[in-house]
Amino acid sequence: MISVVLLGAGNVATHIYKAFSNSENISVTQWYNRTRASISSYANDVDITDQLEALKEADIYIMAVSDDSIAQLSSDLPFTDRFVVHTSGSVAMHDLDKKNKIGVFYPLQTFSKTAEIDFTEVPICIEVYEKENLQLLKDLAKAVGCKPHKITTEQRQTLHLAAVFVNNFTNQLYRIGHEICETKNIEFQILHPLISETAKKIQQMSPYMAQTGPAKRNDKKTIKRQLKLIEKDEHEAIYKMLTSSIKKTHNISSDYKVKR
Amino acid sequence: MISVVLLGAGNVATHIYKAFSNSENISVTQWYNRTRASISSYANDVDITDQLEALKEADIYIMAVSDDSIAQLSSDLPFTDRFVVHTSGSVAMHDLDKKNKIGVFYPLQTFSKTAEIDFTEVPICIEVYEKENLQLLKDLAKAVGCKPHKITTEQRQTLHLAAVFVNNFTNQLYRIGHEICETKNIEFQILHPLISETAKKIQQMSPYMAQTGPAKRNDKKTIKRQLKLIEKDEHEAIYKMLTSSIKKTHNISSDYKVKR
Repeated sequence: MISVVLLGAGNVATHIYKAFSNSENISVTQWYNRTRASISSYANDVDITDQLEALKEADIYIMAVSDDSIAQLSSDLPFTDRFVVHTSGSVAMHDLDKKNKIGVFYPLQTFSKTAEIDFTEVPICIEVYEKENLQLLKDLAKAVGCKPHKITTEQRQTLHLAAVFVNNFTNQLYRIGHEICETKNIEFQILHPLISETAKKIQQMSPYMAQTGPAKRNDKKTIKRQLKLIEKDEHEAIYKMLTSSIKKTHNISSDYKVKR
Repeated sequence: MISVVLLGAGNVATHIYKAFSNSENISVTQWYNRTRASISSYANDVDITDQLEALKEADIYIMAVSDDSIAQLSSDLPFTDRFVVHTSGSVAMHDLDKKNKIGVFYPLQTFSKTAEIDFTEVPICIEVYEKENLQLLKDLAKAVGCKPHKITTEQRQTLHLAAVFVNNFTNQLYRIGHEICETKNIEFQILHPLISETAKKIQQMSPYMAQTGPAKRNDKKTIKRQLKLIEKDEHEAIYKMLTSSIKKTHNISSDYKVKR
């Protein structure tokens, strides 16, 4: 049984709490947040506190707080030589105060308040300063059914950057699709199966192989017609930039095709 | 039983053939392609031909050919007063020769040679010139388990534009994510669950509500750090443009937040 104290009350903390409290091999000893109100609804299920001085002993302290608070909170902890990890994609492990043993437990997934997540599908990127704690972090990931991936701070930050492209930026393209549909009273829902299939396809083949469409085909007529159809300058700029990016990836110039 | 003659041998034609030949309520009378070799492997299952003069009688002629060939092929057809539809997202219905009755049967999905598609999940956008044929197209869609959506040419072209954003451009963002991972020897597969979840999330809430990440949070530190991490100018330009697009959508200026 791994005992855990959880710090923070945001989306990541809440999803971690739910996954951990459902695991037979993890006991959530305590849940800390600086404002008690955010976690008070869990008071019947777990020991909650807003006092750092009241923190109990545990195998791991998991700080699921905002990036900007990590360094400060880690040095405010009123103990030493315990094992403290953060859950951020972008903060360096070494930003944690070294009076404790340190590490990172980064669940690579998009968490929001309302959407339920199957935590067992979440890859956990782990990092430790003291080698002896590697197994504990691996065991923690496995205790919630997740696959642990040992990576460096640089790799984690790179993954986080790639995640911004495939998650936040992709979602913004969905948003633009939604806006475009609304201008002509089309239900955005008609695009749902296409969106699912686009995401599913690259689980079977590389995005390079999966590409289709006017830019990939160098179909100038359709591109020209679509640029005329676009009403917002911002959408036009994004259309042009991503069309040119696809052409570059597939070695298509405006005038001729070069086979890669 | 609806009898169909299929024209063309690309990805769309092949997926349509497979779905239709599995339906109890559709009979594929004949499959035409100008080069016989592309469909000859199906010769045991269906009557195939490369001669327009040999085309048999059927309730519907479905032209799943490239956009540029639609007008020409429709006027080359050696008969009149039959029902002819194309399957394109962007070609106007009126590009079809009006010596026949005309319509559109546009399956809104990404089709590639290798990926298997659950055709029953594909929305079919339909359009007819002669009202009496509307029901037949609806029945055809339903015969393969698909939901038919009656829309105008303008709506279809708008949908096709939106589809380029949520499918081709999204796939290019996956490609960039892949490239970024490769620079630091990270397996792109680690991002698969995030990509799935991002696509799944907007089936439950609007893309506007689903947005997360540094741009949405106006997290300048992370944005600055990520811009430093990016190695290719092209990726940097896309990062900046989509970050600014997210900020605009969520009414975030560089200096202050305005609640929407």
